[in-house]
Amino acid sequence: MHINHTTIQDMESHYRVNFVNSLSGFKSVNIIATANNQQFNAALFSSVVHIGSNPALLGMISRPNSVPRHTLENINASGHYTINQVHSKIYKQAHHTSARSKRDESEFSFSKLTPEFLDHFPIPFVQQSSLKIGLIMKEIIPIKSNNTLLIVGQVDTVIMPKQALTKCGTIDHEQLDSVCISGLNRYYSTEFLGQLGYAKKQSVPVFELRSSNE
Amino acid sequence: MHINHTTIQDMESHYRVNFVNSLSGFKSVNIIATANNQQFNAALFSSVVHIGSNPALLGMISRPNSVPRHTLENINASGHYTINQVHSKIYKQAHHTSARSKRDESEFSFSKLTPEFLDHFPIPFVQQSSLKIGLIMKEIIPIKSNNTLLIVGQVDTVIMPKQALTKCGTIDHEQLDSVCISGLNRYYSTEFLGQLGYAKKQSVPVFELRSSNE
Repeated sequence: MHINHTTIQDMESHYRVNFVNSLSGFKSVNIIATANNQQFNAALFSSVVHIGSNPALLGMISRPNSVPRHTLENINASGHYTINQVHSKIYKQAHHTSARSKRDESEFSFSKLTPEFLDHFPIPFVQQSSLKIGLIMKEIIPIKSNNTLLIVGQVDTVIMPKQALTKCGTIDHEQLDSVCISGLNRYYSTEFLGQLGYAKKQSVPVFELRSSNE
Repeated sequence: MHINHTTIQDMESHYRVNFVNSLSGFKSVNIIATANNQQFNAALFSSVVHIGSNPALLGMISRPNSVPRHTLENINASGHYTINQVHSKIYKQAHHTSARSKRDESEFSFSKLTPEFLDHFPIPFVQQSSLKIGLIMKEIIPIKSNNTLLIVGQVDTVIMPKQALTKCGTIDHEQLDSVCISGLNRYYSTEFLGQLGYAKKQSVPVFELRSSNE
């Protein structure tokens, strides 16, 4: 099946949103928590992306602030936010944070998620999340092609269960029961296939069926 | 376990790379194919991110070109590249493309992946991939915090099996057997948890154990 740019352009808008949102593959699911003087906000993001490890930087894509974007406004104002990994026991609540809300309503309350202050960080974490990251905003970079923004933050603190940290430093997201998403609303748990070593040209890989990896 | 920015800074460098690369959660795995006058290049990226659906835009993070970056150089020169989703039968070959190679060597050949020309697109796709996307480069945006770059491309053509397209437009990545990755080298297949509707404030979600979602 071949789908060209004209066909994509002509898709019904919800259909196109679903289609294009699923092109990149499986995505992480994180709740971004922010705060202003009145209240705490929580918003679901599937665009958190690794930017660099030294210094430790994470990015995420925000839609333009031509309409009110509480997360973007709050990050701009306070310079701090938290990224909270979503696991299988809270993915329905997490999805619920994307419901339309008024400026003076907290998504925490109608989604039954609990704000939790830790490590003297000025923004709450999501208590129910098992991997909580506190960040300091570094840059908000405009993407001219469609007026979205890349928000870049530096990792200030990480709170997680010790047993989910593997010997090599990688976090074991299966142990955290982290979920991933395809498109806007299809949620998945995972099954470990394998850990591969540092790739070298000489070791020739071969096609393998999944059964042989298990 | 609380890990602050000083502890991260003091980590051994490979350990820190693994740790920070796994903070965001599960990531998609795509082979980026590019070409220059001499040859085709293939490189593994886990940073492909949705930028917008109208127009259809995808982003990815490239390290600085202070050292030679074949993918970045080729995209800059030709203005075209392809994103090819990795599934469980080719993830070992895909990982192999990250082996160090010389300028005149193609990762396609030592990874036993096959370049395939389709739809008159000027850059080859990865024949073995089941979701192939041809893109036109729109912007290369510098990220000042660490001199990396956000490469933004517009989707020109998509090639995929018809049966993997769901009624609502979302691509069924489980049917494509797409894998995801945590950190630099831990690969996962997925298991469908559920598709959630458009979130509304009124419908209160509750905590559920995974068994009740299956």
